[in-house]
Amino acid sequence: MRKAIATVSLSGTLIEKLEAIAAARFDGVEIFENDLLFHTGSARDVRRYASDLGLSIDLFQPFRDFEGVSDEQLKRNLDRAERKFDLMEELGAPLILVCSNVGTEVSDDDARMADQLYRLAERAAKRGLKIGFEALSWGTRVRTFDRAWGIVERANHPHLGLILDSFHTLALPDDWSGIASLPGQRVFFVQLADAPRIGMNPLTLSRHFRCLPGQGDLDVPGFLQAVLACGYTGTISLEIFNDDMRAAPPRQTAADGHRSLLFLEERVRRTEEAAAQAPSPARRPRRRVELFDPPLPPAIAGHRFIEVAVDERCEGGLARLLGQLGFTRLGHHRSKAVTLYGQGEIRIVLNREPDSFASSYFLMHGPSVCAQAIATDDALAALGRAESYGAARFGGRIGPDENTFPSIRAPDGSLIILTDPQTGGDFERDFVMDGAAEPTGLLTRVDHVAQALPDGQLDSWVLFYRAVLGLEPEDVVVLPDPYGLVRSKAMSNAERTLRIPLNISESRNTATARLVTNFAGAGVHHIALSTDDIFAAAEALKAAGATLLPIPANYYDDVAARFGLDDALIARMQSLSILYDRVGEGEFLQLYTTPFEERFYFEIVQRKGGYDLYGAPNAPVRMAALAALRGPNLSQVLR
Amino acid sequence: MRKAIATVSLSGTLIEKLEAIAAARFDGVEIFENDLLFHTGSARDVRRYASDLGLSIDLFQPFRDFEGVSDEQLKRNLDRAERKFDLMEELGAPLILVCSNVGTEVSDDDARMADQLYRLAERAAKRGLKIGFEALSWGTRVRTFDRAWGIVERANHPHLGLILDSFHTLALPDDWSGIASLPGQRVFFVQLADAPRIGMNPLTLSRHFRCLPGQGDLDVPGFLQAVLACGYTGTISLEIFNDDMRAAPPRQTAADGHRSLLFLEERVRRTEEAAAQAPSPARRPRRRVELFDPPLPPAIAGHRFIEVAVDERCEGGLARLLGQLGFTRLGHHRSKAVTLYGQGEIRIVLNREPDSFASSYFLMHGPSVCAQAIATDDALAALGRAESYGAARFGGRIGPDENTFPSIRAPDGSLIILTDPQTGGDFERDFVMDGAAEPTGLLTRVDHVAQALPDGQLDSWVLFYRAVLGLEPEDVVVLPDPYGLVRSKAMSNAERTLRIPLNISESRNTATARLVTNFAGAGVHHIALSTDDIFAAAEALKAAGATLLPIPANYYDDVAARFGLDDALIARMQSLSILYDRVGEGEFLQLYTTPFEERFYFEIVQRKGGYDLYGAPNAPVRMAALAALRGPNLSQVLR
Repeated sequence: MRKAIATVSLSGTLIEKLEAIAAARFDGVEIFENDLLFHTGSARDVRRYASDLGLSIDLFQPFRDFEGVSDEQLKRNLDRAERKFDLMEELGAPLILVCSNVGTEVSDDDARMADQLYRLAERAAKRGLKIGFEALSWGTRVRTFDRAWGIVERANHPHLGLILDSFHTLALPDDWSGIASLPGQRVFFVQLADAPRIGMNPLTLSRHFRCLPGQGDLDVPGFLQAVLACGYTGTISLEIFNDDMRAAPPRQTAADGHRSLLFLEERVRRTEEAAAQAPSPARRPRRRVELFDPPLPPAIAGHRFIEVAVDERCEGGLARLLGQLGFTRLGHHRSKAVTLYGQGEIRIVLNREPDSFASSYFLMHGPSVCAQAIATDDALAALGRAESYGAARFGGRIGPDENTFPSIRAPDGSLIILTDPQTGGDFERDFVMDGAAEPTGLLTRVDHVAQALPDGQLDSWVLFYRAVLGLEPEDVVVLPDPYGLVRSKAMSNAERTLRIPLNISESRNTATARLVTNFAGAGVHHIALSTDDIFAAAEALKAAGATLLPIPANYYDDVAARFGLDDALIARMQSLSILYDRVGEGEFLQLYTTPFEERFYFEIVQRKGGYDLYGAPNAPVRMAALAALRGPNLSQVLR
Repeated sequence: MRKAIATVSLSGTLIEKLEAIAAARFDGVEIFENDLLFHTGSARDVRRYASDLGLSIDLFQPFRDFEGVSDEQLKRNLDRAERKFDLMEELGAPLILVCSNVGTEVSDDDARMADQLYRLAERAAKRGLKIGFEALSWGTRVRTFDRAWGIVERANHPHLGLILDSFHTLALPDDWSGIASLPGQRVFFVQLADAPRIGMNPLTLSRHFRCLPGQGDLDVPGFLQAVLACGYTGTISLEIFNDDMRAAPPRQTAADGHRSLLFLEERVRRTEEAAAQAPSPARRPRRRVELFDPPLPPAIAGHRFIEVAVDERCEGGLARLLGQLGFTRLGHHRSKAVTLYGQGEIRIVLNREPDSFASSYFLMHGPSVCAQAIATDDALAALGRAESYGAARFGGRIGPDENTFPSIRAPDGSLIILTDPQTGGDFERDFVMDGAAEPTGLLTRVDHVAQALPDGQLDSWVLFYRAVLGLEPEDVVVLPDPYGLVRSKAMSNAERTLRIPLNISESRNTATARLVTNFAGAGVHHIALSTDDIFAAAEALKAAGATLLPIPANYYDDVAARFGLDDALIARMQSLSILYDRVGEGEFLQLYTTPFEERFYFEIVQRKGGYDLYGAPNAPVRMAALAALRGPNLSQVLR
C-alpha cells in the first residue's frame, strides 16, 4: 500500500523531516500546518522540495472547529477555509483534514453540520480540492466514525469524504465493526496510530502516548482489515503524537514508522492467509492492495553462541569467571585472537582480535557482548526477512577457509549472527580444539540475555525484534531500582527458546541507566544460563571462588513468609544467595554473580513446573544489591 | 528483495544520480568509478550524501584486467588494487567487482588465475573488503559464469566470491542451468539487465542496448529464479548501459528501473505460484526473500469511453465528424460542458469544461484524447495495482452527486480511468440523456487506440502498461514513414479486448514525430473502431460527407497481385479507400479518415477469421498518404 506519515510525527525542522521521511522510503507526507508556519521558505518551495525527494503531499491538516456553528460563524469559517485552500494549491495538497468541532457552542444537529460541510465542499470543488471529515474521539458532538459518516452521507457531496483514524476509533470502547461496510470510495484517507491501554482519557493519551502500529495495545491490524474490507485502496498514513518521538532523531522515527507499516501489512496478510487455510474458509474478497510479504520468520532453537569483545588486559579475568561458572576452554580460533568456551549447549566466544569488529566494539563499549548468534532453521531466509525489514546486513572480515555467517546489525550496532544447521552447525570448524575432556559443568543452555536500552528506545527495539526475528513482546513490568524505575519487556518466541528482556530506565541514575551512559549506548547487562540443579551449580560456583551477588537476609524472611517455604530450604537458599519466585505450579530459582568490570553479570536460573517469567518480584532486591555493591551513586549524591 | 542500481545506468552528475536513485526508492547503489572521478567532492562526501539520502553503497566497480597476468604485472595490479581499496574505505563500499581480463596476453591457466585472485582477496581481507569476480561475455579467457566459478572455487578464499550478471549469462548461447546449483553464499552480488535479441555481438549489444528487465527478450525471470534457487538472498542491482537512458532524465530512468525490478519479482512470484498449483507440484524450496506481490492485473473488457479535450471553436467540427462516423449525440453532462456520443459499445466524451483537467490538457496539447476509460472487473484492485507500481493517482474536480472514477496518470500526464461494472456501469448517470433513438451506426467497439511517443520513451511505456494494466507487448514492427522509420509495438491483453499500439519515430520528421513535437509530448494519433461490414460503413461515411484518407491507385494493383483478390472486390475497395491485409485465414480491412486538426484521425477496421494484427504492411501507404496530404515537410526541406 502507499505509505505516508504526518510531519507532526517527527522531530526537527520541516526540511529535516521531509529528508528523513524520504530516506525511510515513504511515498507521501501529511503536512501539519504548524510545520509550515515555522518554515522560512514558501509553500511552493516545500512542494518542490518534497517532489525532488520523491514525496507527494497527500494531505494538509488540521482544519478545526468548522461545523455545527452559527450562520455568522460559518461565513468566517468559510473565509478562513479559502485562505487554507490558497495554501493547499501552493503545496499541491489535494485534501484537507477537517476534524470534528471541539468548541463549547456546537450545534447537535446533524442536518446543520451536513449542510455546512456541503458548503465547504462546494468551495473546495471550485479549486479541485477535497474535504475529509474526521471524528476526534473528544469532539464536542461528533466523536465516532459512524456519526461522522452519517453527516458526510447526508451532505452527499463528491468532494466531501470521511477520514478514518485508528486511534480515535479504537481508543473509545464503541463497536467499530461498521467500518467494514462503509463505501470505500467515500473514505478519503486513513491515519494509523497505536496506543498503550493505560486507562487515560483519550485526549491526553492521544497527545503524548500514541505509538507506531505494533508498539501499543490497540487492534490496528483488525482496523486495517476492516478498512480494506470496505474497499479502501488509498494511502495509509502514520499520525503519531508521542513525547519520545518528539525527542528522537527524525531519521530513526521515520525508519521505525516505515517498518511498522510493513509489519502491519504482514500481520494483516498472515491473518488473511490463516483464514484461507481454515477448514471451510469464508469466501475471501479479492485483494485490492499490495500487502507486504517478507519471508516468514525463522524457527529459532536458541542462542548458538555469544561473543564478548575483550582486550588482553581483561580477558584473563573473564576467562577465570567462566571457569568458575563451569565452562571449559574448548579451543582457539585458527587465525584470530579468539577463544571458545563451552558447557552444555552454551558456547561463549571471547574476541580480542585487533582491527576487528569486536575490537572496535570494545573501544566504544568496553568488555561487552558484541554479537549474539541465533540458531535458526534457515539463516538465509532469516537474513532475507531482516533485510526486507530494512535491517543492515553486516559483512565482516573473515580469514581464509573460515565460515561466513549471515549477520545483521541490531539497532545499537551490535551484531545478530544468524546460523542454521547448515551454516552454523560447524562454526567450531574455525577453531583448533584443545582436545580437553567434554565440558562437564552443570549449566545447560542460555535462558535469556537481558539488554539495557537508552531512554526512549524501547518501542524501537520491540518493533525491531518483532519484525526481524518474529519475536513477540511479553507483558511489560515496571521494576523499582533504588534510583528510579526500570521498565522491562521481554521479547521471546512462542517456544521460549529465545528470550531477550529489554530494560529501560526512565531515570538517569539507575544501574540500568548508568550502564547505558557509562558505556555509550545499549548493551547486554546480564546473561542468564539454565541449570537443572541450581543448588549444585551454586555450590560449585562458590567452591571455585566466585563471588555471588549478596542478598540481604531480610529478603529470605519475606520469601519464606510469602511462599511458606520450609526453614531448611530457606537456609540453603540464603547460604547460596538464591532467589525464589513462584507462579501457580511454576517455580523459579535464580542467582547472580557480581558484575564483571561493572559491565555485565551472569545469572543462573532453574525453571520448574512451566514457570515462564523472569522473577520480576526479585528484581528490586537484585538492583538494590547491585547499588549497594557499588557504593553511593555519585551523580545522585551530587545533585 | 533489496534493490540497487549502478550509477552508470543514469544520466546526470553523480549527485543528480544519487538523488534520483533515492527518490525512486532504491536501497543501494553501485558506484561506477568514472562517476566518482568526475565528481568534485571527496569519496567521503559521496558516502555521507548517499547515507543522508538513505542509500547504501553496495559495490564499487569495475576493476579490470587483473587475473591471468605475469608475476611482474600481478605486483602492479595488486598495488593498483590497494589504491582502490583506499577509495572503497572512504566510500564505505564493502565489495569491488573484478571483471574478467579482456587483455591480449592473458594466461589460460585456471590455477594461475585462482592463485592471483586469492592474493587479491588476502589483501582485501586485511581491510575487511570483499572481491567479486565476474565473467564478461567477451573476456579473453573467462566468458562464462561456470568458468569464473571454477576459479573462485579453486581459490577458496572467503573474501572472494562470484558476481553474476544476467546480461553476460544470457547473451551467450550457453547452458546456464548450473546457476541453480551454485552455493548461494558464495555469490556476492547479482546484476540484472535485459537486452533485445537483435543478433549483435555481445560487446556492442552490452554497451548500447542493454535495457531494463522486462524491456528486452532475455529470460531474466528464469535467471533470477535460478539465482534464488541457489540460495542467494542478497541485493539485485541494475547495471544498464543504454543510449536512450544516457539521454533520458535520471529521475525517469530510476523510477522505471525500480518499477522493472518490482515487475521482475512479481513475474518470478507468479511463476512460483503457478508451479505450486500444478497437478503434482515439485517440492518448493522455502522462499528466503521477499518478492513483490501487488494485486493481480484486472480482467479488461475494453475501452469504456474515450474522452477528448476540445474548446468551443473546434468542438463543432469534431461533433460533425462523429456524426459522419455514425455516432449519435446521447446527452450532455448534468453540470459540466461535456457531451456524450455513442454507437454500439463505443462512447466518446467531448469535454470543454473550463478550469478542468481537460481544459488544461487542451492548452498544452490541442484537441486530443485526454483520457481513456478502461472497463475492468475491479477498478479499485486495478488502482491498487497501479499505485503499488508507483503510478500517480489522479483526483480531479467533480460536481455534486457525480461519479468519481479511480484514475491514474499515464506517463505523458493523460489519464487512464478505471471503471468496473459497479463504478463505471452507470457513468452515463452523470448525463442528461437526450432521449434520442438508440444509436444506430455500423461501428461496434473500440478496436485499438494508437499513441505516438517521444523518442526514447517506448521502453518506459511498455513497462508502464505491463506493470500497471498487465498488458503484454506484441512483436515490434518497423514502419517506414517517408521521412524516417517508425517503430511500433502494440500492448494488449490476452483476450485482445484492449489494444494500444505504441509508435515511436527515430527521426524528427515523420508524421509521428511531428505529432509529438507539435503537440508537446505523447498523444493518441488515431482511434480505430470495429465494424462487421466495412463496406457499408465506408459507404455511410462517404454519404455523410466525410473525407477518407486517399489511397494511391498503385496500392490496389499491388494488393491485387499479392493476394490474388478479384477485380470487383479491388474496385470496391479502391472506391472506398479500403486497405487490405491477410495472414493465414485471417483477413483485415481498414480505412482512415483524414486527420482532425492535424491531431488525430479515426480508423475503421474489420477483422475476419481471427486476424490478430494491425495491417503493418499498409502502414507505409497510410503514412505516405498523410505526408502527401500535408504537403512538403518544411523542416525536412530546410535541412
